[in-house]
Amino acid sequence: MTRAIFILVLSVLSISGISAAKARWMWYPGDYELWLGNQMNNRRTERGAFFPPFWKMDSHYVLVEFSRQVTLTQPEELSIAVEGRFNLKLNGKLQFGMPRKLVLPAGTHQLNIKVWNQSSPPALYIDGPTVKSGPGWKVTFEDKEWIDESGKASDTSATIYRSAGSGSFADPANPPSCYRLETEVWKPVKRETITRDTEAGKPVQAESLNTGAGSRGRSTGKVQLLLDFGKETFGYLQLHDVTGNGQVQLFYGESREEALDTAFCETLDRLTVSNGQITDEALQLTSAPAAHRPTHSDGSTVSSTYTLANSKAFRYVYLISDPSVNFGAIDMLYEYKPVTQRGSFRSNDEELNRIWEVGEYTMRLTTREFFIDGIKRDRWTWSGDAIQSYLMNYYLYFDTETVRNTIWLLRGKDPVTSHTNTIMDYTFYWFISIYDYYLYTGDAGFIRQVYPLMQSMMEYVLGRTNVNGMVEGMTGDWVFVDWADGYLDKKGELAYEQVLFARSLETMAKCAELSNDRESSRIYRQKARQLIGQLEPAFWDKDRQALVHNRIGGQQQPAVTRYANMFAIFYDYLPETKKSQVKTSVLLNDSILKITTPYMRFYELEALCALGEHRRVMQEIKAYWGGMLREGATTFWEKYNPGDNGVQHLAMYGRPYGKSLCHAWGASPVYLLGKYYLGIQPLKPGYSEYLVKPNLGGLKWMEGQVPTPDGNIGVKMDERTIGVTGGSGTGWLEVESRTQPKSSSGIVEKIGEMRYRIKIERNASVTVSYKAK
Amino acid sequence: MTRAIFILVLSVLSISGISAAKARWMWYPGDYELWLGNQMNNRRTERGAFFPPFWKMDSHYVLVEFSRQVTLTQPEELSIAVEGRFNLKLNGKLQFGMPRKLVLPAGTHQLNIKVWNQSSPPALYIDGPTVKSGPGWKVTFEDKEWIDESGKASDTSATIYRSAGSGSFADPANPPSCYRLETEVWKPVKRETITRDTEAGKPVQAESLNTGAGSRGRSTGKVQLLLDFGKETFGYLQLHDVTGNGQVQLFYGESREEALDTAFCETLDRLTVSNGQITDEALQLTSAPAAHRPTHSDGSTVSSTYTLANSKAFRYVYLISDPSVNFGAIDMLYEYKPVTQRGSFRSNDEELNRIWEVGEYTMRLTTREFFIDGIKRDRWTWSGDAIQSYLMNYYLYFDTETVRNTIWLLRGKDPVTSHTNTIMDYTFYWFISIYDYYLYTGDAGFIRQVYPLMQSMMEYVLGRTNVNGMVEGMTGDWVFVDWADGYLDKKGELAYEQVLFARSLETMAKCAELSNDRESSRIYRQKARQLIGQLEPAFWDKDRQALVHNRIGGQQQPAVTRYANMFAIFYDYLPETKKSQVKTSVLLNDSILKITTPYMRFYELEALCALGEHRRVMQEIKAYWGGMLREGATTFWEKYNPGDNGVQHLAMYGRPYGKSLCHAWGASPVYLLGKYYLGIQPLKPGYSEYLVKPNLGGLKWMEGQVPTPDGNIGVKMDERTIGVTGGSGTGWLEVESRTQPKSSSGIVEKIGEMRYRIKIERNASVTVSYKAK
Repeated sequence: MTRAIFILVLSVLSISGISAAKARWMWYPGDYELWLGNQMNNRRTERGAFFPPFWKMDSHYVLVEFSRQVTLTQPEELSIAVEGRFNLKLNGKLQFGMPRKLVLPAGTHQLNIKVWNQSSPPALYIDGPTVKSGPGWKVTFEDKEWIDESGKASDTSATIYRSAGSGSFADPANPPSCYRLETEVWKPVKRETITRDTEAGKPVQAESLNTGAGSRGRSTGKVQLLLDFGKETFGYLQLHDVTGNGQVQLFYGESREEALDTAFCETLDRLTVSNGQITDEALQLTSAPAAHRPTHSDGSTVSSTYTLANSKAFRYVYLISDPSVNFGAIDMLYEYKPVTQRGSFRSNDEELNRIWEVGEYTMRLTTREFFIDGIKRDRWTWSGDAIQSYLMNYYLYFDTETVRNTIWLLRGKDPVTSHTNTIMDYTFYWFISIYDYYLYTGDAGFIRQVYPLMQSMMEYVLGRTNVNGMVEGMTGDWVFVDWADGYLDKKGELAYEQVLFARSLETMAKCAELSNDRESSRIYRQKARQLIGQLEPAFWDKDRQALVHNRIGGQQQPAVTRYANMFAIFYDYLPETKKSQVKTSVLLNDSILKITTPYMRFYELEALCALGEHRRVMQEIKAYWGGMLREGATTFWEKYNPGDNGVQHLAMYGRPYGKSLCHAWGASPVYLLGKYYLGIQPLKPGYSEYLVKPNLGGLKWMEGQVPTPDGNIGVKMDERTIGVTGGSGTGWLEVESRTQPKSSSGIVEKIGEMRYRIKIERNASVTVSYKAK
Repeated sequence: MTRAIFILVLSVLSISGISAAKARWMWYPGDYELWLGNQMNNRRTERGAFFPPFWKMDSHYVLVEFSRQVTLTQPEELSIAVEGRFNLKLNGKLQFGMPRKLVLPAGTHQLNIKVWNQSSPPALYIDGPTVKSGPGWKVTFEDKEWIDESGKASDTSATIYRSAGSGSFADPANPPSCYRLETEVWKPVKRETITRDTEAGKPVQAESLNTGAGSRGRSTGKVQLLLDFGKETFGYLQLHDVTGNGQVQLFYGESREEALDTAFCETLDRLTVSNGQITDEALQLTSAPAAHRPTHSDGSTVSSTYTLANSKAFRYVYLISDPSVNFGAIDMLYEYKPVTQRGSFRSNDEELNRIWEVGEYTMRLTTREFFIDGIKRDRWTWSGDAIQSYLMNYYLYFDTETVRNTIWLLRGKDPVTSHTNTIMDYTFYWFISIYDYYLYTGDAGFIRQVYPLMQSMMEYVLGRTNVNGMVEGMTGDWVFVDWADGYLDKKGELAYEQVLFARSLETMAKCAELSNDRESSRIYRQKARQLIGQLEPAFWDKDRQALVHNRIGGQQQPAVTRYANMFAIFYDYLPETKKSQVKTSVLLNDSILKITTPYMRFYELEALCALGEHRRVMQEIKAYWGGMLREGATTFWEKYNPGDNGVQHLAMYGRPYGKSLCHAWGASPVYLLGKYYLGIQPLKPGYSEYLVKPNLGGLKWMEGQVPTPDGNIGVKMDERTIGVTGGSGTGWLEVESRTQPKSSSGIVEKIGEMRYRIKIERNASVTVSYKAK
């Protein structure tokens, strides 16, 4: 009994990274995440216009009740902090006002605290010697507790309680709604005066000056500067010591071309300076008047910094200012989520190392309050993008809080009125991402918290299936699949969507089981089996040895695409013989529509890795991601077509700079290298059992670390030796070797032709000598 | 065509009371009402503790899009005011920033404005020479408009638009979230020094001094004052010129007993004064420091007024203050909703006139942002209370905006997770109140706006019916019926609930028809007929000549109560013969459990009026409501049992002052006198056809006015003459007379034994000579 409790506490510790002994702010599960997500999803702008999402934006429950029964062996005093107006019932008796302190005598007590907050989520923090807010508290949004005419309280058996949501907020003085990312000052690496007729919109001549402010453009008298921050970045531009009167325009560019193209750059700001007081024209915000700024002892105003209110993504900033405005230095507040880089990868191939590093930096920029798609636009959470961020994150930061935040935000609240982000495939990725989360973290508590929302989401999906039990796009459904350079039919039953749907049903079955909902688990599993069983009869074309793209009115359509085929491989929905056929007939077949987004490359290359094509995938990684680096990328892109040239690389959505040059889904090598080259993946939830199946894929050596809930697992490998530093679970090292390997510990077990297995005990290190194939 | 439009505009005008030519603030329908309702429902306190409702508190959609296509014959400039962050698309093109002015050229334009606001409902005001916000605009909470890779916008056919909600807000400088009720200063009629030991809690001696402040209590040195405002009132206590240091306690009472009973009064406040700066201990709000207050030219601070932040209901206020605190005058800010008293009633009976006046004042106090139950507690919207307020309101103020506000608030948002206010009967009253609203106002536009929410509410109800298609209380359902001085069985199938359910289904059928949802209308009507057909077989006891109270497991239970029987009468669910039987066997049968709330008296007396028992009802009104007046009531009560004595009248819910002494449902005579004595009621929606069937009920004369959407209808009657001032529709005057009446105009038509009918033309006046029975 004692031991079981100990393990439970450890598990809480390891997932949250927070001491269980600390009180934590709590809220209705998902509510803080929705609220914070609304702040974030609403920060997108397009040429100075606010650009919010087009899907339903849910919000927090404005009135919730937290409760807990506590038993004290001695009296204790509780400190209480609340975001909202609240009351407190002690053993059913309302206390006066909004007490900040409460003394509890020894004994068993029932605490009920009701909090109302319209603007931000009702949140509660309670701290005493043993009574602490956080996990273990219950919360409800309707207590259904009424009293009858005699004053007797009603039965409240109908009240639905949830485990209170919480995160890493442990400071009563810093409530959840005050959360901000960290910032630090970054200076431009280059400051260049641009000389051109600003009316005509094209530079006449550009001179690199690199110093000084206030140089004049030739024909207009305007100040024109181009700042280069050296690489893609994100944050708030800062102007120092602004005085005078006039207008300042700021044009941002992920590329130099974009910043200088004032008519077409995607983001911009306009400031009006009036006696040093600055108005942001888009937000209609005005800075504090000079009179309110701190003064020196001689009465002169302390030199002031104006920080733009809205963050932007850029490498370049082009500033055009009226000559009557004066300013000093310009720099930026780089804004970031503090994450610990726990995963690592190094090899003999410097290009590959650079790909990993740029991938990591891409992920670092897109890992914010939530995992977002890209930092220039959309700055939104998209489920299809997020599931890949989660997977990359498991090999980089193991930041599980941001995974949970994003899962909550993507789900929103009932009623479900559309697919996730309105996209059918994205609904399925949402389900599947929860399966991944459980596998990587072992956090069953979160599964139980989110399960009711999974149920209602699946109800929505099941309510939109056709007579075959399959999904097809209905009015309002965006069937996305991929941005493809070619026609993708979105009509009828897409094999790809059915494969994702089947995987979602399997996820439901698993999560129902974890939530002790056995009857639903049985039903979901049965539905999954039925759908998987239909895949081959419905979509397999034995002449083409592939799943066709879709079926309309029960008729197979001629197109074969990669999507369904590659997912069917790693979800194991095809027999081995057909998997091999697909490899040749689809994955390695150049006549099949090529994938030009890193988004689908992620899965394509994963499928090839699953089929043992590590060398080929390594070449692809170097060609494709190396190709972006050779184009000057400092972060990876939303889309990359090696056939494009020059500014063609910048265009998308019919706009010359529409493409995002820092897009999370661009970073997939960090996932592939960790999972399929270092070869580390969980076999059982939370790495309680895991696999290390390293593969050099043509490299001479590599080394790296992969984070787990409880410490890292490390691999160091060349063509003769493999060293593994094990995790806290049980590991299985699988080695391909021409000869029987020798291990520093454990038994070397032969499991196939040139395949061997060595068990890694808890926290053990193993060194194996082998002979590479 | 022109004429049809003219009528439509007139109809809008008449319902809102606002010029159609004025731009009005708009929002997602129901959202402002929910938000305002949350402010209101959360103002209840209990002995200094915040006391919010126990049902789900919904909130506004935080992101909505308003849109309209406009066609201009000449250019015009629009002024734009917004509550929230917004963008504006003109013909699909996003405009820079948040424009406050927009010039539209002549031609056809598409305007789309997206507004985000977490704290209060996104609201938009647009004013131009012809383009004006308000009715005619569309709004949605998810536009489902995405663009593909080429930049092409998707089909938005899945977007569900609603007609934008709006009200009477026509000033861009006063947005909806700034709405406050009106206030005016009221002074106490009496100020009395109380002399007692405040620790012991009971007055030692009370001396009426009526003047001066600061008199000391005998044994504690505390200042003890009792203020009497002369009658029940509502608002914010004000202390003038507070200085010094110490504590001030305020105890409110609807009765003198309550105010003086510091240990048991229902509401109180505690202030701490520190050098004249005042902290409200319950709200933890501190007044501005004296330094920030305006000063006279000589530098002295302008004498200041401290107004309590929370309003309270009271007639008496008992103040206990430390002697080290000084203050000047004490008064209050009476807070009220400005309504026009359009209905009136006078007769030869002064007691009856006083009953009408006190009823009107009771309604005036409980008609606020919404129709609330009572002003001391709960200060909430309760559906069963509200439906009666609506009906009384149709005979007093015809304030349709407050009716709509309350209907929106009571409904909340999907998903439905419980009955309205958690009470099964209250869900049904919510439906039925919409039928009433349509009948009295003829406002089909509102019906169409609210119909989708009626559908989902009815889905919830239908999902909780048993095998007989009947409702019975399930876990979480509060089956209320009434506060009764005797046992009311709430188990199984209650006849009363089925009658209300049937009426709700009839309402659904009607509203579906008005919303052009013919198929649903057919289904609802069929279900209604089926349920009505089951009433007699299930509940009629032919020995007792009554509907029994309930059935458990298909077995009629022995109790007969008044509830189902009286509703079945005025919903016409019983044949005439059985109605007459019920009158004797139930309504006039003293052995049937008596009704002690004005709430159910409302229906009981209405049923008797429907059966022609006007004289008997008049006696009841005088006995019951006159009884409260004789007990000193200045407003009518939540419950009144003539058998109680003294302070027994104040107790309820097991608390000595738990009863609300100003309760909306107490005011029903204003409805009965208007509808059954003046005899005025709509026959067709919005009084396009109406009935005037006056009945003196034993009075010598009476006169009064009843408001309609378009002017009043007046009746003046004695035992010989009836004068009617008609409305804008067609009226039918029905007269009971021993002889053939003579009319100043129109044909006198005989319609039965001593019953005659005279048609009243549009806006005509008719005088009829008759001979009272």
